[in-house]
Amino acid sequence: MVKIVAIGEPMIELNAMTVGKLRDVTYFEKHVAGAELNFCIAAKVNGVDCSLIAKVGDDEFGYNVIEYARGKGVDTSMVKVDPKLPTAVFFIQRGYPVPMRSISFYYRKGSAGSSLSPSDIDVSKIREADLVHTTGITLAISDSAKEAAMEGLRNSRKSSLDTNIRLKLWSPEKARETLLKVIPEVDILVTDPDDARIIGNVSEPDEAFSFFSKMGVSTLVYKTGIEGTYVYHEGEKFVQRGYHVQVEDPTGAGDSLSGTFISLLLKRKSVDYALSHAVASATLVVTTRGDNEIIPDEESAEKFLKEFK
Amino acid sequence: MVKIVAIGEPMIELNAMTVGKLRDVTYFEKHVAGAELNFCIAAKVNGVDCSLIAKVGDDEFGYNVIEYARGKGVDTSMVKVDPKLPTAVFFIQRGYPVPMRSISFYYRKGSAGSSLSPSDIDVSKIREADLVHTTGITLAISDSAKEAAMEGLRNSRKSSLDTNIRLKLWSPEKARETLLKVIPEVDILVTDPDDARIIGNVSEPDEAFSFFSKMGVSTLVYKTGIEGTYVYHEGEKFVQRGYHVQVEDPTGAGDSLSGTFISLLLKRKSVDYALSHAVASATLVVTTRGDNEIIPDEESAEKFLKEFK
Amino acid sequence: MVKIVAIGEPMIELNAMTVGKLRDVTYFEKHVAGAELNFCIAAKVNGVDCSLIAKVGDDEFGYNVIEYARGKGVDTSMVKVDPKLPTAVFFIQRGYPVPMRSISFYYRKGSAGSSLSPSDIDVSKIREADLVHTTGITLAISDSAKEAAMEGLRNSRKSSLDTNIRLKLWSPEKARETLLKVIPEVDILVTDPDDARIIGNVSEPDEAFSFFSKMGVSTLVYKTGIEGTYVYHEGEKFVQRGYHVQVEDPTGAGDSLSGTFISLLLKRKSVDYALSHAVASATLVVTTRGDNEIIPDEESAEKFLKEFK
Amino acid sequence: MVKIVAIGEPMIELNAMTVGKLRDVTYFEKHVAGAELNFCIAAKVNGVDCSLIAKVGDDEFGYNVIEYARGKGVDTSMVKVDPKLPTAVFFIQRGYPVPMRSISFYYRKGSAGSSLSPSDIDVSKIREADLVHTTGITLAISDSAKEAAMEGLRNSRKSSLDTNIRLKLWSPEKARETLLKVIPEVDILVTDPDDARIIGNVSEPDEAFSFFSKMGVSTLVYKTGIEGTYVYHEGEKFVQRGYHVQVEDPTGAGDSLSGTFISLLLKRKSVDYALSHAVASATLVVTTRGDNEIIPDEESAEKFLKEFK
Amino acid sequence: MVKIVAIGEPMIELNAMTVGKLRDVTYFEKHVAGAELNFCIAAKVNGVDCSLIAKVGDDEFGYNVIEYARGKGVDTSMVKVDPKLPTAVFFIQRGYPVPMRSISFYYRKGSAGSSLSPSDIDVSKIREADLVHTTGITLAISDSAKEAAMEGLRNSRKSSLDTNIRLKLWSPEKARETLLKVIPEVDILVTDPDDARIIGNVSEPDEAFSFFSKMGVSTLVYKTGIEGTYVYHEGEKFVQRGYHVQVEDPTGAGDSLSGTFISLLLKRKSVDYALSHAVASATLVVTTRGDNEIIPDEESAEKFLKEFK
Amino acid sequence: MVKIVAIGEPMIELNAMTVGKLRDVTYFEKHVAGAELNFCIAAKVNGVDCSLIAKVGDDEFGYNVIEYARGKGVDTSMVKVDPKLPTAVFFIQRGYPVPMRSISFYYRKGSAGSSLSPSDIDVSKIREADLVHTTGITLAISDSAKEAAMEGLRNSRKSSLDTNIRLKLWSPEKARETLLKVIPEVDILVTDPDDARIIGNVSEPDEAFSFFSKMGVSTLVYKTGIEGTYVYHEGEKFVQRGYHVQVEDPTGAGDSLSGTFISLLLKRKSVDYALSHAVASATLVVTTRGDNEIIPDEESAEKFLKEFK
Repeated sequence: MVKIVAIGEPMIELNAMTVGKLRDVTYFEKHVAGAELNFCIAAKVNGVDCSLIAKVGDDEFGYNVIEYARGKGVDTSMVKVDPKLPTAVFFIQRGYPVPMRSISFYYRKGSAGSSLSPSDIDVSKIREADLVHTTGITLAISDSAKEAAMEGLRNSRKSSLDTNIRLKLWSPEKARETLLKVIPEVDILVTDPDDARIIGNVSEPDEAFSFFSKMGVSTLVYKTGIEGTYVYHEGEKFVQRGYHVQVEDPTGAGDSLSGTFISLLLKRKSVDYALSHAVASATLVVTTRGDNEIIPDEESAEKFLKEFK
Repeated sequence: MVKIVAIGEPMIELNAMTVGKLRDVTYFEKHVAGAELNFCIAAKVNGVDCSLIAKVGDDEFGYNVIEYARGKGVDTSMVKVDPKLPTAVFFIQRGYPVPMRSISFYYRKGSAGSSLSPSDIDVSKIREADLVHTTGITLAISDSAKEAAMEGLRNSRKSSLDTNIRLKLWSPEKARETLLKVIPEVDILVTDPDDARIIGNVSEPDEAFSFFSKMGVSTLVYKTGIEGTYVYHEGEKFVQRGYHVQVEDPTGAGDSLSGTFISLLLKRKSVDYALSHAVASATLVVTTRGDNEIIPDEESAEKFLKEFK
Repeated sequence: MVKIVAIGEPMIELNAMTVGKLRDVTYFEKHVAGAELNFCIAAKVNGVDCSLIAKVGDDEFGYNVIEYARGKGVDTSMVKVDPKLPTAVFFIQRGYPVPMRSISFYYRKGSAGSSLSPSDIDVSKIREADLVHTTGITLAISDSAKEAAMEGLRNSRKSSLDTNIRLKLWSPEKARETLLKVIPEVDILVTDPDDARIIGNVSEPDEAFSFFSKMGVSTLVYKTGIEGTYVYHEGEKFVQRGYHVQVEDPTGAGDSLSGTFISLLLKRKSVDYALSHAVASATLVVTTRGDNEIIPDEESAEKFLKEFK
Repeated sequence: MVKIVAIGEPMIELNAMTVGKLRDVTYFEKHVAGAELNFCIAAKVNGVDCSLIAKVGDDEFGYNVIEYARGKGVDTSMVKVDPKLPTAVFFIQRGYPVPMRSISFYYRKGSAGSSLSPSDIDVSKIREADLVHTTGITLAISDSAKEAAMEGLRNSRKSSLDTNIRLKLWSPEKARETLLKVIPEVDILVTDPDDARIIGNVSEPDEAFSFFSKMGVSTLVYKTGIEGTYVYHEGEKFVQRGYHVQVEDPTGAGDSLSGTFISLLLKRKSVDYALSHAVASATLVVTTRGDNEIIPDEESAEKFLKEFK
Repeated sequence: MVKIVAIGEPMIELNAMTVGKLRDVTYFEKHVAGAELNFCIAAKVNGVDCSLIAKVGDDEFGYNVIEYARGKGVDTSMVKVDPKLPTAVFFIQRGYPVPMRSISFYYRKGSAGSSLSPSDIDVSKIREADLVHTTGITLAISDSAKEAAMEGLRNSRKSSLDTNIRLKLWSPEKARETLLKVIPEVDILVTDPDDARIIGNVSEPDEAFSFFSKMGVSTLVYKTGIEGTYVYHEGEKFVQRGYHVQVEDPTGAGDSLSGTFISLLLKRKSVDYALSHAVASATLVVTTRGDNEIIPDEESAEKFLKEFK
Repeated sequence: MVKIVAIGEPMIELNAMTVGKLRDVTYFEKHVAGAELNFCIAAKVNGVDCSLIAKVGDDEFGYNVIEYARGKGVDTSMVKVDPKLPTAVFFIQRGYPVPMRSISFYYRKGSAGSSLSPSDIDVSKIREADLVHTTGITLAISDSAKEAAMEGLRNSRKSSLDTNIRLKLWSPEKARETLLKVIPEVDILVTDPDDARIIGNVSEPDEAFSFFSKMGVSTLVYKTGIEGTYVYHEGEKFVQRGYHVQVEDPTGAGDSLSGTFISLLLKRKSVDYALSHAVASATLVVTTRGDNEIIPDEESAEKFLKEFK
């Protein structure tokens, strides 16, 4: 069976039950999230085994992450429990100041997850995997986590990276500098115009592909939102438009898109098939508060696509 | 006063409080539903008396159905309480795998409601009624319920049937075979392209009318969704487009459409009036989780239509 | 710093947690509202001090109003506590009979707020303020409240009035008669086609401006809904279209529009800037159940406008 | 079948979802209540028909009352809908300032229910009933309601009154004066030490019985809380202690006690049986927020008593 | 590591959010439950591996059971998915008619779980286990399930049975007859006075031990509620009183008691230690709505016991 | 008017909506808390002005703290907004592992509040105050906060300290060392046996008083839980037993006790009066999830005491 290893910090998400400024929100709904865990769950739902390399705290939220991920079928045998540091949490503010958009407020500084280091990477497991995945978030949260991620990428048979630049975690300069170093290690790159502008001062899809392919990227997944997701792969260009639905919270949509697309590609599905499923998956994710629960399996994505074609 | 008798199983509905896979839903909201009960409530709200012939269990959910229906003004004097069998329940999954669509999971096998039989039909009451209504669901849930429904239709002064084919309850073959026998007993038929395809391999409105009118149907209500509802009545064809609104749960919309249309027709309102009210009613039903609470009275439907014209 | 005084009744709002007829709503969410308090909060969020002149009951809901308004930065030193009369409450029914619209059911007859009288108006504070604001609601709830409002307007350096005709509070005839007397005291008038028709039998924007400017109004804010809000000011005409968003409850949107527009005008922002912010503010208010919590500050409104331009 | 007529105002209850000052409560749960309606439901659950004579508003809350009462089996054919006045509402604050106690805040002044008058009393129906019931609340809310209640009592074959003095509705002096006039019309009196002190300056059970029996009362139900409920009936004295349970909201417990006791007495059950069931009923009512939903039928009360004996 | 195999039907539990008759409950909270699954989770939390042998439906609730159990560390590799039959559900009514007690309403007839049969038992796994556990529920739900349970017990190295007689599933006669056949296969028996009376017409602890030990039971766990749990083991008698806490829902307490006691015994803890932990565990379970989430690990049980000693 | 200054970190509290392990809690209710803010609110409710010296982040939660405290009447003019650091949050787990007890999980490391330093202390305001209050928490969260607190105590006319040792924030050794230095600066000390054991290896009330009075403490408030709170003041010893109530969450009870006691003492009420009110206040706080909303004013505490005497 195809197997992925993902490296990154899982977190407890506290999602506002009502739209508006967080100061006026009384109730929060807890979910388990984190870009790489979301990716892993998308892979698993699509029939690809996925192991998460991560650290959590020796606290209720840490065991929450492990139980949830294990329940969803993610291999958690490489999730370590740090005896001292806490599991990270973040809060989601929805619909303010922009309707249908969300903002995250992180409490992850000094967290167990950000203390991940190269010693936490089991290189033998990395080498066995068909693909190693990480994101710009892991590169941003701490130097040791960045080193851990790079240790993973360097030893991988194949690798993917979602740039995922979060300006609450690092400056554009720091992000650019780091990503320019890391991207050459990567086979499949997932990014979007905002991030491409920071990294390479490019924004048009073709221009972005030209830029990143020169850096050695062989497959580019370029997300421009509702207008469409572009894929450049083996000399071909593909595009899939998004779908208009009632938006609850877009958080996690990108992770589900990349996790679905890449895992279906690894399963040797066509790019068209993988891309349409990936966009279906991301579309469903924006209709709910959680980041990964609603990710559809292949049969369900087909039902979605039959209605929305 | 005009009077309807409806025959069919009322149920307890457990509606998911959040969109997504039922496995990830923590809270459920209870409603009272069932196609024929929904129809009856639509009739009553529109000023037409309606009696329900049905069975429920001698349990909390059974009394729940009776108290709710009675509160809404439905005559429940012919709802029998079975001493042994349970009241049926069903769960609604919303927005997965298709946004704005719902899926029902039934626990109605061996229920009190499905044990309905011809002996539960008070023929004298049937003969007094202006109309007897039932649906394909009653025909599907058990042989005895089917016989009960047919006993009702056969003894009616006028009758209506909503085909309502639920493939979780019977196969397309069984549905077709049964409906081909029952439809000739019916004056007013309510159906849609999916069901028409199963029954007569027809789907276009005119084609469907041609097919069903040959079977003896005098009035056809043909629901094609947001594009429009067609009515063929006394040699004329009418159509009313649907309205775009925020969708919470479409369950019950069809019942409210047929209940409103038919009861207004019985009140000698024009087809245009009855059809526009019927579509207004169905539109409101999709904006809420319950199947029948929001059904508008005539004055309220007029307010709706004034805004949405 | 610029300073506004607003005169009118604050209330406790019980907002239906579910869409539909209030009889079928089980849970209600409490908010603090009232047209003039909403206006005051909009002013404060936009950096303009605002004092509320009002009365509340010596009860939990009265202290609720004071604590909430004070927390939001409104000056409550002129909110008096009546020892005997209760604080008014109202219930909001949402989405019935018209989706995305709301209806208010008031329990304000004989309330503390409606007992406001000219003796509650501290004329020295009125004279110090840059602007005095009130609405047609204050004119409608009682004769003494109307006199209090007029005492405020007459002694103001500058004044604004939102006509806000609520036909549950007075007849169209009474509304017209009163407003025809009051409007000549007003500098800035906020109204809409429904109200303009009642007052002056006018409805087209230019026609309305012609009518009201003859009565002495120097600035007219004319709200025609999603199609646009018109402003006539110093010989110029401005218009801003509305934005399509998911509607939760439109209650309070107009107050936030006028509070934002007028306070930014007082801060000497351009009409274009003030109007676009005002419409952004009103748009956000319709996405939530509360009337005033989500009102954006200038920086947040800019973020909104950047996305929705 | 035994039949009761009860006269009094039904109301919409908004019960705080959290314990504490109402100003800090965000969510409210709606119930249908009112002392006489609670009494009626207790009668019906215990197998005694009950009709309510009352008025409600022509509004959602009015139809809410009717649908709810009808659903619960109460005869609502004598509940009139007033075209102008609103249905009364009240709010319940729980656990403050005294844990396990509740306080009601009424919005019933000028309500439809308080406009009840002798012309609303159908004397022929009163004369047919086995018992007419009312409470001190009906005597307090308006002069016309008091007259209506007295019209009912005077024409009854047998009558019961729960003194139910609410000092938010009238002064102790007014209460005493009125009750001293009304009690001589009454066969069964339900009261407690607080009320007995106001009416007759008595508080000990025997002392109270002596006082009231001199006024013509033949049966006295005397509620002293958890210590016990005393009954004086046909020369005998009975007592039943209360039960310690987790208290959610005591509102309505007294109504359920009197409704259960009196209806079982009318069914010719023994005083011991009726009293133990009445206390079981009241005990269950304090464990929930609603006033009447949990009232047990005879079989269920027996199960309760088997466990708590 | 010590290893248990448990045989029995896992279910989806819909727990009433409010106390009272189910007809009046609007919201339900979903949990995953089932006597043997609860037992398994108690074992796992106490450091003993546990595998569940069971069947679920190929539906959302079936995968819900698997994901939940797997998340909690239960080995679900022997939980089969039936392609046709549904996963069982049940509803919990709390606090009516007896405060602090619960009643379950099952929808498990014809469920996937009740179709368990001897062919689902992997005898090699049974033989490897340190203990095989089942309950009277598995013996009651179907003949094939009973045969499956007996196949497990007969091939076990050591076995335990909780009699768990549910009179909604079988008659006392059927229960007695079956249990008298099964108990001789069992090493550790868990029961209570109600069940012992049905099985052997015994109720006093010593009397019960005498009866069951003659049938070959070597260890007896005898639960008499708050008064105490008795253990007879290797010629000694132990007792542990219960603790008074605020009761939310007692469902599952017995399973957690037996699962904790037996797994600690297998870990060679003293009977005193195991019994006190078992009672602590059961006490915590009654304070929550779920059946198994709050089961304490050894360290947490020690904290509990330190406070409640 | 009497005036207090309190120094310490306010926080956002996320309180579990259900009892049990946090991993199994889905919903959290937000409150504003912090030992010194709770104290301040208790003072204000009891008629004593209170200013909070603190820092919060320039984020939604920071403004949440300010708006809430200002709404409750606390003077927030000395609450500074840090442009970079976040507002602290904490989570409350209730009822596990010990029923009726709570555990806090802090995310306050590196928070704005813990960056408080002596430069944030306006000594002129300190000198004007009748009393300066802080707690052991402020001494524990950072060196700069400790210095700030000591700057406040040293410059006070009168001071109080609640030892409030939280072992998640510092070691017993560190706590002892620091408190032994700080207590000599303090006039009124609030502590309990657990803390007294750490500080002075004392636990019996008299023994504790002997120990602390030698350190210069003139008034000792010694909380031993439900058994009683002891006060040693001007040569006299007072004691007040606690009250048994339904416990929701004890967090904040101690702060409300000390805030109520000390503010009433400053208002020259008798120790008996102040102490009984303080215990009433703490008792009410344990019945709710928030830390400070339910704190009773004097009149309400009297009502409580009348019922519970």
